Amino acid sequence: MRGLWLENRKLSFKGDLPTPIPGKAEALIRMRLSGVCSTDLELERGYYPFTGVPGHEFVGEVIESPSDPSWVGKRVVGEINIACGTCAMCLSGLSRHCERRRTLGIHDWNGAFAEYLVLPLINLHAVPANISDQAAVFTEPLAAAYEILEQTHFDKEDNVLLIGAGRLGQIIAQVLQLTGCKLDVLVRHAKPRKLLAERDIRTITEPELAAKKYDVVVEATGSPAGFSLAIHSIRPGGTIIMKSTYKGAVEVNFSSLVVDEVTLIGSRCGPFEPALQILAHGQVDLLPLVEVVYPLEHGQAAFEQAALPGILKILIQP
Amino acid sequence: MRGLWLENRKLSFKGDLPTPIPGKAEALIRMRLSGVCSTDLELERGYYPFTGVPGHEFVGEVIESPSDPSWVGKRVVGEINIACGTCAMCLSGLSRHCERRRTLGIHDWNGAFAEYLVLPLINLHAVPANISDQAAVFTEPLAAAYEILEQTHFDKEDNVLLIGAGRLGQIIAQVLQLTGCKLDVLVRHAKPRKLLAERDIRTITEPELAAKKYDVVVEATGSPAGFSLAIHSIRPGGTIIMKSTYKGAVEVNFSSLVVDEVTLIGSRCGPFEPALQILAHGQVDLLPLVEVVYPLEHGQAAFEQAALPGILKILIQP
Repeated sequence: MRGLWLENRKLSFKGDLPTPIPGKAEALIRMRLSGVCSTDLELERGYYPFTGVPGHEFVGEVIESPSDPSWVGKRVVGEINIACGTCAMCLSGLSRHCERRRTLGIHDWNGAFAEYLVLPLINLHAVPANISDQAAVFTEPLAAAYEILEQTHFDKEDNVLLIGAGRLGQIIAQVLQLTGCKLDVLVRHAKPRKLLAERDIRTITEPELAAKKYDVVVEATGSPAGFSLAIHSIRPGGTIIMKSTYKGAVEVNFSSLVVDEVTLIGSRCGPFEPALQILAHGQVDLLPLVEVVYPLEHGQAAFEQAALPGILKILIQP
Repeated sequence: MRGLWLENRKLSFKGDLPTPIPGKAEALIRMRLSGVCSTDLELERGYYPFTGVPGHEFVGEVIESPSDPSWVGKRVVGEINIACGTCAMCLSGLSRHCERRRTLGIHDWNGAFAEYLVLPLINLHAVPANISDQAAVFTEPLAAAYEILEQTHFDKEDNVLLIGAGRLGQIIAQVLQLTGCKLDVLVRHAKPRKLLAERDIRTITEPELAAKKYDVVVEATGSPAGFSLAIHSIRPGGTIIMKSTYKGAVEVNFSSLVVDEVTLIGSRCGPFEPALQILAHGQVDLLPLVEVVYPLEHGQAAFEQAALPGILKILIQP
């Protein structure tokens, strides 16, 4: 099959990758559309060691499902953590945190920037007919944004600051807006500001931020500077949601966090079903985030464009 | 009055400090007993700039209370944050986090290592008659330990690790034991281990810790090494309570906290009423933590002994 291959921090297009073969309780899925995420770019930069097909945001069609043919022909999205089912985490219902997990297109499991991928049936969710492919491909990052609502309660009176309005930040902003909280989004560039304004989401600049303190701060910049701003902007007793990973260690003045009794919550993957419901009911509109759809053959160009400042969602079509 | 005075990181005994004069809605309190806390030692080391009488753990007797004479003669303990009553934090009920707060014996307010101190009436709690002075002097650190229960729910099935069994760790251990959770306390020295064993609290050593993961970890060592152990020992999705402050910045690999969706909660002062109830009902026994009672004149020696490894609670009597 055709696909992108990452090896030694080099991404290349291959015309002759072996088509994967579904095992027991797995499905072979033909890709319809996939999305480039910041994590994909970090894999290419070598932040995590990975050799294989990257890509973990996709919508596809089940082509083979040996143990349950009822899946064949269904349009699906898929959860990215492939769990062992037997470790302490899996047995306690936390299979997303499986101790031996493999992760689609990230760790030990070939991903979505190819014609086909294989996933366990347990990872799949059928996509309602009224969700377009270009919306469905956002299910994984939308679930990751929704995870924030699973971890923290948002009150209508809460002053909430979102730092970062990039490809994940835009989705988080729309999800936070659903709670009715008093949301400010810190934005540096004109285009993301315009997109938020079109959704009636209030934006704020760094100078305006100086004196204001927030009940909840969501950090989604991926840079330690964003984390410093979060610390600066949180009120005593407030909660910081950490939605991005940083390369290497970050220096933190923990004494201020202890004295101010701040809560920090790490936040990664989220539940797919609420994300699909939000899409099915049109509660968010993510299509304006799409910059361009590249063919698989031009995957390197897709990655290059995705890495440019201010660029939102780049899609890849096989 | 007689008292200890801290200035330029030097602690000295003074025989001629001015006796404080209570303002409106304040009380003059004669000290009966006060306790040396790690924060006092950090003040002496210059971790925070403070000039004045240190000491914030005390039990005393109200001598003067101009605006409400009903307090006179009462045995009291006192909350340590002196709030402005008008800032955003105070108005939202978070007066412990008052933006302009002064803190007894720590910041801009003379403390308990003297014959007398002054505190606002709103900070005072009458001590039930069945609580001895040596028990009542533990109200403030017991409240700080109890704060953990206000911040996190503990289930009987939760595996909980407490790192640090020093003067605060011992109190936290007894408070955590009240929840019925499955508690392990990481201990290095023989004496704290023996004290915990006498309360049927299970202890654990570092080699035993290697493979075990906990639902909740409470870090109370005051050293960055303790924080590293906490990160190592927490299960994905678990909660780390940070009960100690560290000098300077700590290097943290935030990516692992994000990927594992760990929650970090800073924890400082706590509510006095539950602490007094716990003491009144004899649910904890803190008297075995008392090493020795020094007279005020020998305050420097008290501080020196308190700074020795493995030393628990040193008390000072005027």
